[in-house]
Amino acid sequence: MSAPDSPTSAFRVVDLIRKKRDGGTLSRAEIDFLVAGATSGAIPDYQITAWLMAVVLRGMNGEETAALTNAMLHSGEVLNLSALPAQKVDKHSTGGVGDKTSLVLAPLVAANGLYVPMISGRGLGHTGGTLDKLEAIPGFRVGLPVPEFRRVLETCGCSMIGQTEKIAPADRKLYALRDVTGTVESPSLICASIMSKKLAEGTDALVLDVKTGSGAFMKKESDAVFLAELMVETGERMGKAMVALITNMDQPLGRMVGNALEVAECIEVMHGGGPRDLRELCLELAAWMLHLGGASASVAEGRTLAEQTIASGAALKKFRQMVELHGGDVRTIDDPGRLPSAEHRVHVTSPRAGFVSSIICEQIGTACVVLGGGREKKEDSVDPAVGIAVHKKIGDSVAAGEPLCTVHCHSDAQAARAVQLLKASYAISDTAPVHRPALIHRAIHHSPRARGGQ
Amino acid sequence: MSAPDSPTSAFRVVDLIRKKRDGGTLSRAEIDFLVAGATSGAIPDYQITAWLMAVVLRGMNGEETAALTNAMLHSGEVLNLSALPAQKVDKHSTGGVGDKTSLVLAPLVAANGLYVPMISGRGLGHTGGTLDKLEAIPGFRVGLPVPEFRRVLETCGCSMIGQTEKIAPADRKLYALRDVTGTVESPSLICASIMSKKLAEGTDALVLDVKTGSGAFMKKESDAVFLAELMVETGERMGKAMVALITNMDQPLGRMVGNALEVAECIEVMHGGGPRDLRELCLELAAWMLHLGGASASVAEGRTLAEQTIASGAALKKFRQMVELHGGDVRTIDDPGRLPSAEHRVHVTSPRAGFVSSIICEQIGTACVVLGGGREKKEDSVDPAVGIAVHKKIGDSVAAGEPLCTVHCHSDAQAARAVQLLKASYAISDTAPVHRPALIHRAIHHSPRARGGQ
Repeated sequence: MSAPDSPTSAFRVVDLIRKKRDGGTLSRAEIDFLVAGATSGAIPDYQITAWLMAVVLRGMNGEETAALTNAMLHSGEVLNLSALPAQKVDKHSTGGVGDKTSLVLAPLVAANGLYVPMISGRGLGHTGGTLDKLEAIPGFRVGLPVPEFRRVLETCGCSMIGQTEKIAPADRKLYALRDVTGTVESPSLICASIMSKKLAEGTDALVLDVKTGSGAFMKKESDAVFLAELMVETGERMGKAMVALITNMDQPLGRMVGNALEVAECIEVMHGGGPRDLRELCLELAAWMLHLGGASASVAEGRTLAEQTIASGAALKKFRQMVELHGGDVRTIDDPGRLPSAEHRVHVTSPRAGFVSSIICEQIGTACVVLGGGREKKEDSVDPAVGIAVHKKIGDSVAAGEPLCTVHCHSDAQAARAVQLLKASYAISDTAPVHRPALIHRAIHHSPRARGGQ
Repeated sequence: MSAPDSPTSAFRVVDLIRKKRDGGTLSRAEIDFLVAGATSGAIPDYQITAWLMAVVLRGMNGEETAALTNAMLHSGEVLNLSALPAQKVDKHSTGGVGDKTSLVLAPLVAANGLYVPMISGRGLGHTGGTLDKLEAIPGFRVGLPVPEFRRVLETCGCSMIGQTEKIAPADRKLYALRDVTGTVESPSLICASIMSKKLAEGTDALVLDVKTGSGAFMKKESDAVFLAELMVETGERMGKAMVALITNMDQPLGRMVGNALEVAECIEVMHGGGPRDLRELCLELAAWMLHLGGASASVAEGRTLAEQTIASGAALKKFRQMVELHGGDVRTIDDPGRLPSAEHRVHVTSPRAGFVSSIICEQIGTACVVLGGGREKKEDSVDPAVGIAVHKKIGDSVAAGEPLCTVHCHSDAQAARAVQLLKASYAISDTAPVHRPALIHRAIHHSPRARGGQ
């Protein structure tokens, strides 16, 4: 039990369920009791799921959300990285298609003397995962034990590993139940799930990249803003420096979707090139990370510092060092042509001349899954070589028969379903669309709900 | 599976939970699928309880409620009494304190040529149960097998037994889960639970006595009316003749609370005596039963018929016959002094002169439970002899030191806690209360929600 000042017998589970059902506010001790009981199995699943549904439909306030996050965080191991001689900074994205910024951000920020202890997830459904991208580098070990993770951090300032069994077991238990009971879609439950895992890595500051649009979990910007504010507030309640950027996911980020293809694109960015939108988002997120970590006096200065770190080659050098320390083959960094690749190409061409007016971004991600480059189920293995190169994005003009995107695969047969999905994703219009989606909608710093606006 | 026209694989449980969570309407096939899966165990409890919470918070419309009732009804055995040569009529009460009308109604209505196939429950919590009252008659068997129940019905027109294992197993399963997950309080779930059990007995018409007030489950009259309308609508959708009387439970019905005491009071009523409120409610409920069963052209005529049936002694004669056919000792009917009794008496007296302004009716019921005359848990056994004689009711004047009520028990020690509860139940004021609670608030016949008012 993690409720030190109240005996477990002080609560009856059914009373706590009723309280939330009737719109009441649960105390920290009550939430500790429920989370501990769910994790240990002392409270049966059928009571937990009734409570979860009441939370989905009645909501939780900021204090309850922070208490839930805290209880879930302390259900498992919390790393203590306070011995490191500088601030620890991390970034978390709610997930999208072609979303690969972590690979650039960790070394870029570490190259400026801060520490980036990044614990990441795998891809699931239409969104990719950082671990899968890193594993496209032959030999790269994402499963370092915690002591080795510490050594890599101490040596090069950044390390990227997967979640261990010991981190936030309450989240694993609750997520498994939420997944099958229609109780995923609660901002408080999503916030606690994300934040309990992220804060277990011992970071001082956290930059959130909250995606919105057709390729994001939050299709509506208002939902993304609500979640972002809640996460910022929760992190601040727990003593962390926080910011959330609301960013667009109406189309893939950058041009590449697929694990090895995305690693190569990140190397381009660290060489000073790469697609403009990806470079832009990396610089903006890096600027905030550098600023929150105290490496720059302002976000604007952080931005300049980030640009310099790429221009000087320091970011790429740091990335190469991290790959080496994780056992990865650094020759693939020096020559991305050595990354796994699929030689066969199938072009998806435009049926007519015009402009790309919209993209069903989620379907681009699904096309990559269908090729074997992502997962439908957790147990699926991933082919690092396959993927999609996106040539045309929203607002681009296109001629009849011109390729909109190209499938990287092993055969025509393998590409068939993906090609169908990709074709159906693109809408072509006669005139240019009035609005091209802005990449970065806004930054949420101090939570207005916690502080009364700023 | 009870969804004949749709394969079970057509539904994913999580999709149905989500649909209800988002305020959607479930189809008959979807509800059949959920109820069948809950009953067989094919759907795990943790999904059922999440769905139940969504039902509590989002509600169900009349059509869904009827579909749920129907699915639960057909989860088990449904008696076919169509071979009986007259209409079958029953009454159901939502439960109260001193609520004993069934013992009068079944023989009274049967004495007029209708059939009353009554399947009843036991007392739980502060409310009493018909089966416990009947078992106060030495030898009375409430556990007749169905063929014997039929024979008694054929012979004397009425029989009163307990629910068998085979009736509405879905309700037993769902109720056990609702009880521990804060999902009892949904009008649709309550309606389906009551109606699925009642309609399994094969009745053609059903008179509902929906209690409201401090001794009822529905404290607020608006809640009672909502439930009553829903039950009337549901019964009508299932082809039954229906009426609901909204009746007052701000104080015990009649003067006696306790199983043998209540049997004796019912015999008084069948002799043409008994307390005015109990007699009045019996006549009104009987009038509706006779009318819905076709034994009278109007409710008013039914009332006259009911009065005559008591005056002629036919009701009491029928009761005696039923008791005999159930193996009960009829000498207790002829001489109620032979019923089990507790010789010790403890009076609860008024602390001062004045008027009874209110009674916490639920506490009177609890006092009887504390004496051993009711159940806190299903497994508890019941002492038929103990109980409370209520002398003063709301509006009555009382002198200082005059008894408000008298505990029938075996010793002073046994009475101590009950006496405390009874004392605390009575409020005495200097002036008579402005409103004495009306016994019968209204009759709900055709559901206004189903028919657009009447």
